[in-house]
Amino acid sequence: MKSLEERIIKDGEIKDGSVLKVDGFLNHRIDIGLLQDIGTEFYRLFKDSGVTKIITIEASGIGIACIAAQYFNVPVVFAKKSRTSNLTGEVYSGQIYSFTHQCFTDIYIKKDYLSRDDRILIIDDFLARGGALDGLIRIVDDSGAHLVGAGIVIEKAFQGGGDIIRSRGIRVESLAIVESVENGRIVFRDQ
Amino acid sequence: MKSLEERIIKDGEIKDGSVLKVDGFLNHRIDIGLLQDIGTEFYRLFKDSGVTKIITIEASGIGIACIAAQYFNVPVVFAKKSRTSNLTGEVYSGQIYSFTHQCFTDIYIKKDYLSRDDRILIIDDFLARGGALDGLIRIVDDSGAHLVGAGIVIEKAFQGGGDIIRSRGIRVESLAIVESVENGRIVFRDQ
Repeated sequence: MKSLEERIIKDGEIKDGSVLKVDGFLNHRIDIGLLQDIGTEFYRLFKDSGVTKIITIEASGIGIACIAAQYFNVPVVFAKKSRTSNLTGEVYSGQIYSFTHQCFTDIYIKKDYLSRDDRILIIDDFLARGGALDGLIRIVDDSGAHLVGAGIVIEKAFQGGGDIIRSRGIRVESLAIVESVENGRIVFRDQ
Repeated sequence: MKSLEERIIKDGEIKDGSVLKVDGFLNHRIDIGLLQDIGTEFYRLFKDSGVTKIITIEASGIGIACIAAQYFNVPVVFAKKSRTSNLTGEVYSGQIYSFTHQCFTDIYIKKDYLSRDDRILIIDDFLARGGALDGLIRIVDDSGAHLVGAGIVIEKAFQGGGDIIRSRGIRVESLAIVESVENGRIVFRDQ
């Protein structure tokens, strides 16, 4: 998605040589017009997949998933990262490892909100080593629903998670794929 | 908002006699059509306030704020509940007390994303004792921006926070105001 790549180059920040930060338009301050363009593109890619539900993970996936869900006319379910007193009843759970924050996090989705008849699209903001996506895929598998694929805004290909998950036969569509971030220069994979 | 009240009665769950749960359409599984109706109503209420930015708090406020922001054509900034390694630079911070979870939580917004020229609308899913809303108001005050008011989906009036904040001269518009939840029966304030 050319306009997204241009936005990443214009407003993304590179820290410590290779960390790409997109706080200014995607992760903390959110450009809603950009999210509409992203949602439209996910719809173009997955409109023939019979999607019945979009799932994502709190917190930064939620806005992207909700805007995109309008085009599919389906509900969103977001995985929670803590099992608070509000989360009652039976849950699907998984454990994900964040290399960014160097810790394990448990994630939960209430069983009532996934069904064997669902055709699930996973949406998330980032895909790096694939920990979060793998955790969501395992929850979809546990539920017996059909996974149609994953829509990712920014994939950091040099961290390998996307290609490992694709090699398992799962459709992963990333709107911008960063091949490398070196000396402040971002190189995208041709798509 | 009559359709919201009807939805709360139809699909809300009452736990322990007085806890209202709306996980099935607002907080965990999200009905996007309902969020569009909510966003349209917030726009009707605040369209003449010159809103330049919507702020909310992770996680359950984000979807509501993003959908609503489309009608105002403004960006969203969400307060983060942890200061991870991703959150660099100077921040506005506040501390909120959650009576639901009986703990203090720090919240942060990067200073770059609020400006003295902003006219801020706060949007959140719930207003009970007002801890989260008060924390966001203090951050807006610290930034020097103008607060036009708060748009809340569900206010639990029997916990008092909304009326305390209104008594400070702040405009609080709640789309459904629950006066009481007793023996499984929800009573709304007439609006």
